[in-house]
Amino acid sequence: MEVLKGNVMFGQSGGPTAVINASAAGVFTEALKQEGIIDKVYGAAHGIVGILDEVFYDMSEEDERELEILKTTPSSALGSCRYKLEDIEEDDKDYRRILEVFKKYNIRYFFYNGGNDSMDTCNKVSKFLQKEGYECRVVGVPKTIDNDLAGTDHCPGYGSAAKYIATTVMEVFLDARVYDIGMVTVIEIMGRNAGWLAAAAALASYKGYGPELIYLPEVPFDLDEMMEDVQREFHRDRKVIVCVSEGVKTADGKYIPELVGELSTDAFGHKQMGGSATILAEYIQEKLNCKVRGIELSLMQRSAAHVASAVDVEEAFLSGQEAVRAAISGKSDIMIGLERPADGPYETKIKYVPLEEVANEEKCVPREWINKAGNHINQEFIDYALPLIQGNSEYVWEDGLPRFADLKKVRVNREDN
Amino acid sequence: MEVLKGNVMFGQSGGPTAVINASAAGVFTEALKQEGIIDKVYGAAHGIVGILDEVFYDMSEEDERELEILKTTPSSALGSCRYKLEDIEEDDKDYRRILEVFKKYNIRYFFYNGGNDSMDTCNKVSKFLQKEGYECRVVGVPKTIDNDLAGTDHCPGYGSAAKYIATTVMEVFLDARVYDIGMVTVIEIMGRNAGWLAAAAALASYKGYGPELIYLPEVPFDLDEMMEDVQREFHRDRKVIVCVSEGVKTADGKYIPELVGELSTDAFGHKQMGGSATILAEYIQEKLNCKVRGIELSLMQRSAAHVASAVDVEEAFLSGQEAVRAAISGKSDIMIGLERPADGPYETKIKYVPLEEVANEEKCVPREWINKAGNHINQEFIDYALPLIQGNSEYVWEDGLPRFADLKKVRVNREDN
Repeated sequence: MEVLKGNVMFGQSGGPTAVINASAAGVFTEALKQEGIIDKVYGAAHGIVGILDEVFYDMSEEDERELEILKTTPSSALGSCRYKLEDIEEDDKDYRRILEVFKKYNIRYFFYNGGNDSMDTCNKVSKFLQKEGYECRVVGVPKTIDNDLAGTDHCPGYGSAAKYIATTVMEVFLDARVYDIGMVTVIEIMGRNAGWLAAAAALASYKGYGPELIYLPEVPFDLDEMMEDVQREFHRDRKVIVCVSEGVKTADGKYIPELVGELSTDAFGHKQMGGSATILAEYIQEKLNCKVRGIELSLMQRSAAHVASAVDVEEAFLSGQEAVRAAISGKSDIMIGLERPADGPYETKIKYVPLEEVANEEKCVPREWINKAGNHINQEFIDYALPLIQGNSEYVWEDGLPRFADLKKVRVNREDN
Repeated sequence: MEVLKGNVMFGQSGGPTAVINASAAGVFTEALKQEGIIDKVYGAAHGIVGILDEVFYDMSEEDERELEILKTTPSSALGSCRYKLEDIEEDDKDYRRILEVFKKYNIRYFFYNGGNDSMDTCNKVSKFLQKEGYECRVVGVPKTIDNDLAGTDHCPGYGSAAKYIATTVMEVFLDARVYDIGMVTVIEIMGRNAGWLAAAAALASYKGYGPELIYLPEVPFDLDEMMEDVQREFHRDRKVIVCVSEGVKTADGKYIPELVGELSTDAFGHKQMGGSATILAEYIQEKLNCKVRGIELSLMQRSAAHVASAVDVEEAFLSGQEAVRAAISGKSDIMIGLERPADGPYETKIKYVPLEEVANEEKCVPREWINKAGNHINQEFIDYALPLIQGNSEYVWEDGLPRFADLKKVRVNREDN
């Protein structure tokens, strides 16, 4: 195989996770080792936007120690974006600009870390560069707490979010039981179309400290049925925990906040705003006349790296490393995927997935992993998810608080090139 | 000193914390050691309510290993209550009932773990038993995430909540900065009258990843001033994090949710419910027309023992132990207090505080620890709080998830006594 010499461009895209920086650390440390092949390693500010705007950093300027700490620093250290490239048939301006920048900086390796939309970007750029005959190896690095990427068993970011959700739900379970009164707690969990995150609450049930009811977007949501479920559970034990995916929607496609105003109950009549947890909590309060509490796990579920899964952090780092190794070995137009052995104990295995198989696909929780009533999760999911939350990733602690990576972010001067 | 032989009654009261069970573990393990002095060690179900109803557990039946795990199990393992004893001048029924139960079970040591209201209960029971000439040593064990107990430098429960808040705010700070757009994040933190918990967000600022603005109940809240602060910070950096205590109130005593409806803005006109974070976020959104997010740290801030402070867990355990030791040595009518050396490195020191000095007193953040503008926190607070969040308490982990204490809770049979 011919050795392709040149520079690396790396970008982070989409919503941040507890481990997206671990993948960045994997790409940077592996790429910086490739003496004689890779010269410069650039990190784009705010993903593809930084490439278009020619704003990126020279990662070789960073201290080794900080790149190590980057592995346990949550969020997106280089900045992210939600920029979508136009369809090339409609407008090829962005594509031409990317080619121009890549040529100017001799970018021969492009690594893009993100979810569905980002893999779509990656795929489009890859196909354009091929068509233009510009040799550049393009490898996607998977990332999403949503776990909805096709072509991979699971996604870096998911295990840590799942561990945070399960741990937090267990803690809230204990807290919600201290008073000798009836109480319903509604916990809202991220996930617009796929219910993987809300399903993680079932890990708490598996340990005996979990929700009685879990609703995912994979099953049409029915407010009356939910209310029946809650009433039944409440009369059984007077303590109910309901976990609900923010993405649940009715059979005719309405999200919970869209139900507000439509129903002429007192609870809904006077308010328009607030998340699903608040809305459902108030609705349940009106119907049951008991103490309720709505909790939204909000940004914490994707940023709480203090309780990240060690398996997840390692797999995120490895995905970054493997992206570089695959590209050096001649692979391109792929995303790094993860798979597990067909049987026997869990083990991380790497696979290569053609980008076009990933782009814009969305993997949902299989219906048969959800119980028949559509209000809880089956053992198949527990068996799937447990290996992904193993081990505790440790922060570097300083003064009793996290020590995050302190990057210099030395901006590459446009005039130098 | 005369040795007082008899049985122990212990109860947990008020809102749970990450470490209230550590104090219980301290009381139980120390009391169970006192052969020849203490015979039975009882744990009341739901605090004083369990005593009145004669529902309690024989703690000697518990496995030693489970009592050890209790030390790192959040929430209130025996159950809590918010029951307030009547003023004895009004109605002495409850007091007579307590005396009856104490006599029946030969209770000579009463330990009560809680905050202001609980120390009031403790004080009232203590004074009544004295008046009746029933010899029983009564010792309060401090507990509250609010940190508002008088007579002690700080309270077990606060350090862990402060560590959770500071860590979470640091993580949210990073998350809120990933996109290249303006954004205001409002984080609502517990604390009805005292701002200690919201002040803990300043620890994140101290590390360089914290809120630009912090509002405590100690300073009258002015919505217009807050809006000016937010606008100024927003125009400076386009990213603003605002931490607000749930207890902030206007000069005429109105809490934020009470402002809703009173102001005729669009944001407030159509809604009545939701916490301060949501309300302020929507108000700011209307004024600034930028992306906003309201986050409520909810029950997590008092139950997230996975990120508890090791200092706090040890002090909570020690407070329980010391309560037993003090009572055995003849002390009564006191609460265990914590103090620190006047100078030099931090060290945990125990003091005894007369119960009447604690009951119903509320200790607030000193005004001089808050900046002049009333929108951030001074270094004095940082110096005070840092020692309390040191070290990481570790869960026992099992299957990648917390392993909580599994108590048998062997109910004491009324007929046996």
